[in-house]
Amino acid sequence: MTAIPQPHPKLGALIDALGDVPVVTEAATVRKRSRDFFWYSPILNAQLHGKSADVLVSPRTEAEVMRVAAACARFGVPITPRGAATGNYGQAVPLHGGVLLDLSGLTEVEWVRGGVVRCGPGLVMSELDAMLAPQGLEQRLHPSTKRRATVGGFVAGGSGGIGSITYGGLREPGNIRAARIVTVEPEPHAIELRGDAAQKVNRAYGTTGIITALEMPLAPAWPWVEMIVAFDTFAGAMAFGHAAALADGIVKKLIAPIAWPLPSFFAEVRPFCPEGRAVLIVMVAEASVESFKALLGGDGDITLERPASDAPGQTPLYEYTWNHTTLQMLKADRGVTYLQCLFPHDRVLESVGEMCAMFPEELLGHCEFIRFGGRVTASALPVIRFSTPERLDAIMALHEAHGVMIANPHVMTLEDGSRHKRADADQIGFKREVDPMGLLNPGKMRSFVPAPRA
Amino acid sequence: MTAIPQPHPKLGALIDALGDVPVVTEAATVRKRSRDFFWYSPILNAQLHGKSADVLVSPRTEAEVMRVAAACARFGVPITPRGAATGNYGQAVPLHGGVLLDLSGLTEVEWVRGGVVRCGPGLVMSELDAMLAPQGLEQRLHPSTKRRATVGGFVAGGSGGIGSITYGGLREPGNIRAARIVTVEPEPHAIELRGDAAQKVNRAYGTTGIITALEMPLAPAWPWVEMIVAFDTFAGAMAFGHAAALADGIVKKLIAPIAWPLPSFFAEVRPFCPEGRAVLIVMVAEASVESFKALLGGDGDITLERPASDAPGQTPLYEYTWNHTTLQMLKADRGVTYLQCLFPHDRVLESVGEMCAMFPEELLGHCEFIRFGGRVTASALPVIRFSTPERLDAIMALHEAHGVMIANPHVMTLEDGSRHKRADADQIGFKREVDPMGLLNPGKMRSFVPAPRA
Repeated sequence: MTAIPQPHPKLGALIDALGDVPVVTEAATVRKRSRDFFWYSPILNAQLHGKSADVLVSPRTEAEVMRVAAACARFGVPITPRGAATGNYGQAVPLHGGVLLDLSGLTEVEWVRGGVVRCGPGLVMSELDAMLAPQGLEQRLHPSTKRRATVGGFVAGGSGGIGSITYGGLREPGNIRAARIVTVEPEPHAIELRGDAAQKVNRAYGTTGIITALEMPLAPAWPWVEMIVAFDTFAGAMAFGHAAALADGIVKKLIAPIAWPLPSFFAEVRPFCPEGRAVLIVMVAEASVESFKALLGGDGDITLERPASDAPGQTPLYEYTWNHTTLQMLKADRGVTYLQCLFPHDRVLESVGEMCAMFPEELLGHCEFIRFGGRVTASALPVIRFSTPERLDAIMALHEAHGVMIANPHVMTLEDGSRHKRADADQIGFKREVDPMGLLNPGKMRSFVPAPRA
Repeated sequence: MTAIPQPHPKLGALIDALGDVPVVTEAATVRKRSRDFFWYSPILNAQLHGKSADVLVSPRTEAEVMRVAAACARFGVPITPRGAATGNYGQAVPLHGGVLLDLSGLTEVEWVRGGVVRCGPGLVMSELDAMLAPQGLEQRLHPSTKRRATVGGFVAGGSGGIGSITYGGLREPGNIRAARIVTVEPEPHAIELRGDAAQKVNRAYGTTGIITALEMPLAPAWPWVEMIVAFDTFAGAMAFGHAAALADGIVKKLIAPIAWPLPSFFAEVRPFCPEGRAVLIVMVAEASVESFKALLGGDGDITLERPASDAPGQTPLYEYTWNHTTLQMLKADRGVTYLQCLFPHDRVLESVGEMCAMFPEELLGHCEFIRFGGRVTASALPVIRFSTPERLDAIMALHEAHGVMIANPHVMTLEDGSRHKRADADQIGFKREVDPMGLLNPGKMRSFVPAPRA
């Protein structure tokens, strides 16, 4: 066993208590697995550098999860659950060492019926869709990291993505049907959270119980066609994207306008992104392609059109959207970062235009049309040329001053990262029940105060 | 052959020219089949009383349709296509005698693939859904007359219905993929109208060619649950219905708030409509029922919940919505009629409330939530206690003066019945091509002037 820098004093006893639950203590591996994609943010990159768990534990069943939870509670060891760690806020980075709980082994599909799947949190989302495809079904929503991300990781650390143009975000009633969680106590128990109650684990970064099963509603797995459409201007891509987003007869999964020069960083599909032009990346059901093209008319030029696929060998176009857009540029230029914006639905085009005009040198426009609260609007992950933390804060403040909601992606706590700058009251209250000692991902829900030790 | 009152002078020659295409000339039958449900309107009832074709012709193939069209063109005989004649504007009532073209024999399903069906116009919509069900598919939209109405009749005379809360109306790009029509000329030909072009036959009352095939996009056939929810007030039913309509994670097909005393006329389900209370009739996917109930909370009381079915033996709840609401009351009280309203999406609840308050004695509130142009709003078919035509006009004018769009259902022409009070320019232009002599359903497109005879 490699030496661990300042491990938790009870670590050895804890590991002994885990019996045959797989454990890795080799420091380089544990450090590597303790990271997520927080490095998109220069602020978080500085703050989270070097943070690591002491031990990686990989349970294969809910019973093993309970065994880990019991041991951590008994020895007072922090426990940070992780899926594929594709998040960008340090969700899965342990701030206080302890156990990194790898849930990727919980991949059982319990059942699929009536348009719903119940499965373990560790299933990779593209693998789940591949399993569902023969039944003509697929997940309603997925992040751009679908080929790596897990179902549980998305629920615990995400908010929406591809599919949100039809179903809205994970917060919408009905988009998470139920979650089963395990408490962190000397004698852990499982709790079934149904309906609204399942929101207690949504985007809670694993602070409110360890997810061991999820019941997720499904969508019809239409044959999807993905396209790149080139426009002379970003405003043109936005305007047509908005019209397409509002066209309820056109079945769609993704509408993402992206300003030049971002497409110049789109490695494999660079040849389909004409120099100097904005692009719109879309996923439309095959049955709606003809209508989509009729709506487009002469407004833009389709430069690429092909069946969408998650299979290896071809990068799905959704991997150039949402925060993958940022990633494509970061691969070439580490001097950029990004924001998370939500524009007002009743003046979405004007508002996006204002923000682009306000920061002509610093902001590279990039939106996704989504439904939010039943209305079509745009969220955005604009790429920002980073100068200083103060300037980044100022850019966000200017957005908010102009009616654009910001979910700050440069902070590590739930509270600071939410649009409302506070933790959900339900989540805080629930945490007291399920993690009274505050061992779950400590430091991420900063408004939580553990109960005094008995 | 029974004597026909004032038949077209060339009728005998025309019938001879039809060969073995089935023909009925028995006057009582022809008169009966020449009616639709225009009698919901006291105005139309007076105007259309006694209108009848001279002969009912029932082709079984497109070739036979062409034979009829050719004969009508040669002998200058009017030709009025009809599906199941479930419309309410006299769409299928021949104003000038001639041929009533019964298209209910064209029922071939050419193919089903990629989420699309291509079929004859005469298929009854519930029968088509029954055929599609084994593939997990169904039609996106249907009228409340689904168990009688035909696919072609809906396209030619309808605008939206059950399903419009998700897909909008038939006018939305993508909701009619293609239509094949036959022209009325001495040598008829068929024209394929794809995408936008297919709108040339939508709600044109059969004036712009005889539909012989339609390509319609499909939706997933979720197991649907239908419910009646009782509310103390119509405003309460509207407010919750609006919230449910905006909940994109809840998959739904119908949300119809209906004010008391309308539910007192709902024969079979009267026991589930509590005295004095408004009801909301909904169809929700089984997977979304739990979320729907969570959203409802204590706002209303579910008095009936059961699997939705078009099968004989049970009246589907959608037959208490859309214009079936009016019908249920008309069965008991012939003193009522109805309006067709579209409320502004940005103040829908206020606007509906204003109209209810403006006509407390005359207007019985009844709405359907729909998507229109990508926004959730309400259309309405309020029941009106009829006094005089002048008062009916005044009520409609007052709606329009308060920002509510009206499609007048008490007029028989396309122009007067549209929200914009004019025929679609595309439809008029197209009619010149496909029906140069103006023989198709003459009198319904009043702005059309036939070309001078050569």
